[in-house]
Amino acid sequence: MKLSQLFTKTRREAPRDEEAISAQLLIRAGFVHKQMAGAYVMLPLGLKTLNNIIGIIREEMNTAGGQELTMTALQPPEPWQKSGRWDDKEVDVWFRTHLHNKTELGLGFTHEEPLTALMAENVNSHRDLPQYVYQFQNKFRNEVRAKSGIMRTREFIMKDLYSFSRDQKQHDEYYEKMKDVYTKVFQRLGIGEHTFTTFASGGSFSKYSHEFQTVIEAGEDVIYLDRDKKLAVNEEVYNDEVLNDLGLDKDKLEKVNASEVGNIFTLGTKFSEPLKLQYTDQDGSVKPVVMGSYGIGPARVMGVLIELFHDDKGMIWPEAIAPAKAYIVRIGEDEDVIAAADELYQKLQGQGVEVLYDDRDIPAGAKFADADLMGIPTRLTVSPKTLKENSVEVKLRSETDSKLISTEETLKLFNK
Amino acid sequence: MKLSQLFTKTRREAPRDEEAISAQLLIRAGFVHKQMAGAYVMLPLGLKTLNNIIGIIREEMNTAGGQELTMTALQPPEPWQKSGRWDDKEVDVWFRTHLHNKTELGLGFTHEEPLTALMAENVNSHRDLPQYVYQFQNKFRNEVRAKSGIMRTREFIMKDLYSFSRDQKQHDEYYEKMKDVYTKVFQRLGIGEHTFTTFASGGSFSKYSHEFQTVIEAGEDVIYLDRDKKLAVNEEVYNDEVLNDLGLDKDKLEKVNASEVGNIFTLGTKFSEPLKLQYTDQDGSVKPVVMGSYGIGPARVMGVLIELFHDDKGMIWPEAIAPAKAYIVRIGEDEDVIAAADELYQKLQGQGVEVLYDDRDIPAGAKFADADLMGIPTRLTVSPKTLKENSVEVKLRSETDSKLISTEETLKLFNK
Repeated sequence: MKLSQLFTKTRREAPRDEEAISAQLLIRAGFVHKQMAGAYVMLPLGLKTLNNIIGIIREEMNTAGGQELTMTALQPPEPWQKSGRWDDKEVDVWFRTHLHNKTELGLGFTHEEPLTALMAENVNSHRDLPQYVYQFQNKFRNEVRAKSGIMRTREFIMKDLYSFSRDQKQHDEYYEKMKDVYTKVFQRLGIGEHTFTTFASGGSFSKYSHEFQTVIEAGEDVIYLDRDKKLAVNEEVYNDEVLNDLGLDKDKLEKVNASEVGNIFTLGTKFSEPLKLQYTDQDGSVKPVVMGSYGIGPARVMGVLIELFHDDKGMIWPEAIAPAKAYIVRIGEDEDVIAAADELYQKLQGQGVEVLYDDRDIPAGAKFADADLMGIPTRLTVSPKTLKENSVEVKLRSETDSKLISTEETLKLFNK
Repeated sequence: MKLSQLFTKTRREAPRDEEAISAQLLIRAGFVHKQMAGAYVMLPLGLKTLNNIIGIIREEMNTAGGQELTMTALQPPEPWQKSGRWDDKEVDVWFRTHLHNKTELGLGFTHEEPLTALMAENVNSHRDLPQYVYQFQNKFRNEVRAKSGIMRTREFIMKDLYSFSRDQKQHDEYYEKMKDVYTKVFQRLGIGEHTFTTFASGGSFSKYSHEFQTVIEAGEDVIYLDRDKKLAVNEEVYNDEVLNDLGLDKDKLEKVNASEVGNIFTLGTKFSEPLKLQYTDQDGSVKPVVMGSYGIGPARVMGVLIELFHDDKGMIWPEAIAPAKAYIVRIGEDEDVIAAADELYQKLQGQGVEVLYDDRDIPAGAKFADADLMGIPTRLTVSPKTLKENSVEVKLRSETDSKLISTEETLKLFNK
């Protein structure tokens, strides 16, 4: 896209009320706009970035057998009353609303109840199981304090997958598989090295749940990390008994701040019992379905990526996530330069490469600053000087040095 | 996808409370699930169908210069108070909610106000205009009565594009262009022949707005249609003066029911004035931006497509919209038949064709019935009989006769 046509503008000043560096940079770069505390507009470049994250997660969920659907934000009380989670004493993050006839509704903060009720209409026999169902869905959570920018919001997109298994054994197999799937997802998202499987508190049906915690200074959670074993323990279950249980050595653990980018949880029959999600087994007996839940917050991943990868000039996106692979800086208004930059832009687009083309009539320094702030992986400069050499100045965002490379070779850099 | 793995089931009975044939068929076929009156879950096949519709609309919006973003459902009062639409006396479809600190919020029923306020932060000069911005966004409307299945709901996805122009002339050019873009969109969506540009009431800044009305019996609107001119007049502005103005002959008009699948509207400075969206023109004067809005309801299009294309056996999807191009019916459990059907499935998938493979252990008649109910364009039957002929029985959903075609030729049918 040509930057002269992009409606968003970059800003030098970070908003005063944003403490997280990720939110500051996203707003300065024109990736997001704060609508209110805890609710952010995804602007064109932010939406492209978020969609790249979502695309990777979706691919892996499909590979893991997931069937995608989209549920509703508006939630009638019935299924939640059956599980006991309609009550504000049980759940303090409900946003409430009502129909004109006074019927009370809530905005879904999660979707176990309606999905369990839906599955009960579709599962009868052992032959109908297992099933894996997921969505990318806006969740609404009435947090008392919204903070950490896009990492903890009142309205956010969430990938939540739910597994429906015949018994504990079938559940355990999928749960273990999903640990590996999640590890792969976070590797593909570029935060694999910094993300650790973390033991956290379980529920009535399992001793532990597992969080995927990315170590960042601004993290809201505290974990105790064994870097060699690539395992961690959340502060909430950090005690001698647990360490002993997990075979971890207190002296080898590092106390760090981290942000939870995903979690997996054994739900057992917590929802299937009250919502009557049951099946007839081979021997004719009727049994409740064993459930698990598997969440990832794509916008939080986006924030965490920036917290990890930025410098004083701006964001530094991994190739797979960046809203564009290349940023063309055109210097000066010489006809030859314009023609050469136009051609480079068109050829890259023809190769299917997403490019930001800075064709604006502003000083070169401002273009370099914006390229850095937006964190586009490769910067391509076309100027009278590079033109003399039949070349393009190529600079990676993650490196300091640039090189002059022939236009032909530059195009080859972007062949897949 | 293999139907043995799909969690949804088809149903023989239509729900009693659904009057619209489209909603009856969608629910029977397992495309959607009714969460409550006016809020529907998009099940896997329904979501694929909806996403095909969205994909076509998105392509055309991008071609028309649209920049995609995503705004928030949670809406703070400020921008709406400035336009006067926060008041329940002005707008009776607000869903209200509030934060724990009692701050009142609404759920966006449209997004002119927050987008205008956002643009005001990004537009300063005549060089920043024109701009075209759009989203696919969930809208919430607290309708007293939700009816017509997915065609009129309380929570629905909407494509809304907004144009921001320097003056009336620049606005008018884009508005006229969008009429053509919309005509093309509805052609690509398969409802072009049945959809008519319809004059409807305008606002303070234009005599008329334009609706795109699809003629269906279940339509909620009444229009007066001149089929030769491919033009119509909405009942709300149907009078002698208007007919005269538009050069339409009363005797040639047909009174029909129709459903509004899209509309375009000149907003003028209705929002830019109160929300201070203005720019400095070349001569140094400060002027308000001239706006237009352009909506399409993808889920309503989905409903309208079914109202238009169905028979007593089920839905009949156009190729571009169908959740799968082919439905493989495997008859019997012979090893050879299973191997042949498996191979056909894999080869089609290898060609990038979306296929539903009915590998379930149920009677052939039930498979045929489901293929028809789901409305998949091409049915491919593999049986001991077809195998003897080294062939596949190919039947189009829109035709009654089937043909035996060699497997090789069958695969070629799906080459793009």
